[in-house]
Amino acid sequence: MNSPRTIEFWVFCGSTYSYLSVMRVERLAAVLGVEVLWRPFDLRPISQSLGMPQGPFRANPPKLAYMWRDVERRAQRHGLPFAGNPPYPLERPELLATRTAIYAAAHGWCGEFTRAVYRSAFAEGQMLGDEATVTTAIRGLGLDAKVVLDAARSDAITRKLSESTEEAQQRGMFGSPSFVIGRELFWGDDRLEDALDWATGQQPVA
Amino acid sequence: MNSPRTIEFWVFCGSTYSYLSVMRVERLAAVLGVEVLWRPFDLRPISQSLGMPQGPFRANPPKLAYMWRDVERRAQRHGLPFAGNPPYPLERPELLATRTAIYAAAHGWCGEFTRAVYRSAFAEGQMLGDEATVTTAIRGLGLDAKVVLDAARSDAITRKLSESTEEAQQRGMFGSPSFVIGRELFWGDDRLEDALDWATGQQPVA
Repeated sequence: MNSPRTIEFWVFCGSTYSYLSVMRVERLAAVLGVEVLWRPFDLRPISQSLGMPQGPFRANPPKLAYMWRDVERRAQRHGLPFAGNPPYPLERPELLATRTAIYAAAHGWCGEFTRAVYRSAFAEGQMLGDEATVTTAIRGLGLDAKVVLDAARSDAITRKLSESTEEAQQRGMFGSPSFVIGRELFWGDDRLEDALDWATGQQPVA
Repeated sequence: MNSPRTIEFWVFCGSTYSYLSVMRVERLAAVLGVEVLWRPFDLRPISQSLGMPQGPFRANPPKLAYMWRDVERRAQRHGLPFAGNPPYPLERPELLATRTAIYAAAHGWCGEFTRAVYRSAFAEGQMLGDEATVTTAIRGLGLDAKVVLDAARSDAITRKLSESTEEAQQRGMFGSPSFVIGRELFWGDDRLEDALDWATGQQPVA
């Protein structure tokens, strides 16, 4: 084939289930020869416009309780660390992890960065959205944290984040993680395998 | 083992994704030597108490659109018929299919019955909750439709449905299908395999 098979991975660094996909997507895609295009976005304005300003869990106590147990079981199933529920909500007011992910995506290290912040939260109990966690993740990649954080907080990143979020909404997304192949949307970590099958033509066409 | 391994299958016959589990649960469980205990319940009062009187989809247009496409793709993946979106909402005001399922569960033919009404809806485009669909399903099992429908509409079934629904809520359920093994809850058709693994001890214990 001339064009590489590509999966768009839309991720909001405030989503709990996204931990499972952040840790798995590049490994699974690589085995299949599929390229991962990281597309960080802000889920909060989308949730707000759908009448769920707190997202799917905080207004639904049984679903919230279930989610943590389910993430724990699924992490076990996939051989991923889970050190108990991390501080929640994950994203903090500033969206610093998602902003940094937007910057990272433009510079080719979004996978390494998001894995680092998610690992801090789910394997080490850190606050994913805190400056300390984000700083440690950036430094772990051998990068200058001040330079990156200044960029992540810049108007240019605010604009890019807003554009990505608008694009996500226009393309029908309502949750994270989401996977897109062409016009085909898959939502949720439990659809990662389906999405990869679709990207490699293994899914029967409707 | 002395006691058979059992999975409780909690199902509301107004849930779209439940189609996929209704059609698969007994087949998959049988292969593993797991017994299925059918537990029909009414999801509507639970959704209402969680502030979602219309359920998870009708107030969320992108999620509703996604759900139909996802059910279609998942049906294909599992080799199940899908003849386009059936009339929706599925349950109609009267809850007749769920009421009949409650009666059927007490008489040992809940699996056959729910498969028949779901097949009518998803493979033949019938209205799942209509008396005509339910009647056809009952007759297809060689039973007297009038006797069964009278029983399904009786106060005794109203009471049983209400008790089951209360039990579901007390045990942390918030959606259909749900699978319970002991105190372990799994939600969604995409957790059917996980639930069966749990029932057979294949899932590592936390």
